[in-house]
Amino acid sequence: MPVSVIFLGTGGSIPNKFRNLPSVLLRRGPELLLFDCGEGTQRQFLQCKAGTNRKMRIFISHMHGDHVFGLPGMLHSLSFMGRSRELEIVGPEGIRQFVNSVNRAVRWYSQFPIQVREVSAGRIVNEEEYEVRAAWARHGVECLAYAFQEKPRPGRFDPVKARRLGIPEGPLWKNLQNGHVIRVRGRKIRPSLVVGPSRKGVKVTYAVDTRPCVSVVRLASDSDLLIHDGTFDESASTKAREYGHSTAVEAARVAKAGKVRRLALFHISAMYEDPRPLVRQACRIFPKTILSEDMSSIYVSR
Amino acid sequence: MPVSVIFLGTGGSIPNKFRNLPSVLLRRGPELLLFDCGEGTQRQFLQCKAGTNRKMRIFISHMHGDHVFGLPGMLHSLSFMGRSRELEIVGPEGIRQFVNSVNRAVRWYSQFPIQVREVSAGRIVNEEEYEVRAAWARHGVECLAYAFQEKPRPGRFDPVKARRLGIPEGPLWKNLQNGHVIRVRGRKIRPSLVVGPSRKGVKVTYAVDTRPCVSVVRLASDSDLLIHDGTFDESASTKAREYGHSTAVEAARVAKAGKVRRLALFHISAMYEDPRPLVRQACRIFPKTILSEDMSSIYVSR
Repeated sequence: MPVSVIFLGTGGSIPNKFRNLPSVLLRRGPELLLFDCGEGTQRQFLQCKAGTNRKMRIFISHMHGDHVFGLPGMLHSLSFMGRSRELEIVGPEGIRQFVNSVNRAVRWYSQFPIQVREVSAGRIVNEEEYEVRAAWARHGVECLAYAFQEKPRPGRFDPVKARRLGIPEGPLWKNLQNGHVIRVRGRKIRPSLVVGPSRKGVKVTYAVDTRPCVSVVRLASDSDLLIHDGTFDESASTKAREYGHSTAVEAARVAKAGKVRRLALFHISAMYEDPRPLVRQACRIFPKTILSEDMSSIYVSR
Repeated sequence: MPVSVIFLGTGGSIPNKFRNLPSVLLRRGPELLLFDCGEGTQRQFLQCKAGTNRKMRIFISHMHGDHVFGLPGMLHSLSFMGRSRELEIVGPEGIRQFVNSVNRAVRWYSQFPIQVREVSAGRIVNEEEYEVRAAWARHGVECLAYAFQEKPRPGRFDPVKARRLGIPEGPLWKNLQNGHVIRVRGRKIRPSLVVGPSRKGVKVTYAVDTRPCVSVVRLASDSDLLIHDGTFDESASTKAREYGHSTAVEAARVAKAGKVRRLALFHISAMYEDPRPLVRQACRIFPKTILSEDMSSIYVSR
């Protein structure tokens, strides 16, 4: 199932001409996972034409305005566009009160069911083919980082070997691929004889807003893509510490420690009209660093 | 004092590629009046570079999400940008609960004083040089239309006539201009001898969302600019009635009945990629119709 990431908003705290407030859309086949929902997300989301009635979850990192103020409008517009399918919103404590009190204040009732679930660190979504885990980030308030990870798929089935062993094509092949030992004319055949090693799925970690920290390194470990707070350049490292953010270099160190395959700097401060220095600084430590840009997308594969 | 209007967002209900959600910024010299604050307003507002610490009021027409969901982010960003001056938010019943409950839910405290005032029809702002009046629009929920009107200024002083009458330049000139009768060498001189008729100020009316109605015609009477709900074209007139909006033609009729000088169609439905037919239809009834466009601005004068 193809996995892609679309950066709907890549700025931090306040928007500027180039960067909207934070939101990342992960598409896995027909399913949508939205990480954070800063003001303006609905507009970017509708432009993606990702579909308004798909299976969808929204993950909120923390209850700071720049990460949640797009949520009420997003729900309104999905309803306006005719969504009928349930939508789940996942976030730390406070997210339920926010959604409920805004809807109450504007006396709005959704046309589709909305479930709000307050979560903590741990496995928070367990689907047949993927899971989402959360870990505490370090940002002054309760803030969750999220990792989306596909479950391993069975290894590749080798039909040439199978025929050579005299296994007739059909349900027996399926059984082997699913990891079951079979019997052919009284002979036991183990899957490893015809099936390669199981194939790892794609892993994407979203860690915003946060200081560099061990829990995020652990969560992000072995990710194909790490989207990490890279609010400031090195000259503003004091500011990064003070406000609970990371510099691009700190993000690069997390990427390196977590042995990830790619790092996307995210939550770029509005003070950078030209944020290229951030990438240059990060690349010295972790060369596979890119700068997230509004409405840019990445296909993620192993 | 120059008066200009900047359309920050001109769409309706949901945003599209061309139109943000509703918000209009009126600048009068150094003062700012913002009408509605749809999601995404802060981004447009910051791009205007209108100043974040100016005397400012925000007027909310009604408590539908597309008109208020930009307010929390706007307040956050003004605070983030260092605003210290008080800001007043004016709107119908419900606006206070909205502002307070959102701030409570995200545990946010403004760095500048915020006053929220729930108002009804009538004169709601009375400044030395201008006033703002509100009238009930017709939209299914409590919805206010607003008219900004400068108070008449004294007429032009004619220095040639004044000298001919032997009035010495100085405080006596000022007194005449301010409408006082003066005495020069025992002779009474009335202001009308040297001062022209008083000059009308600029009037701008904002009437969104609304069906065409008499109260708006009265409020808008003699406006230099009427910004009016023009959500639909004539072929969607049933929809306009059903959802409490106006067609472009209905807006034109209001403009004509109110004897305004210019009409800006506003709150254009996202379903129009090419909304020129709306202007064409309106112009048949009221030729001085323009289509509002995001980030376009108009200088308004008598």
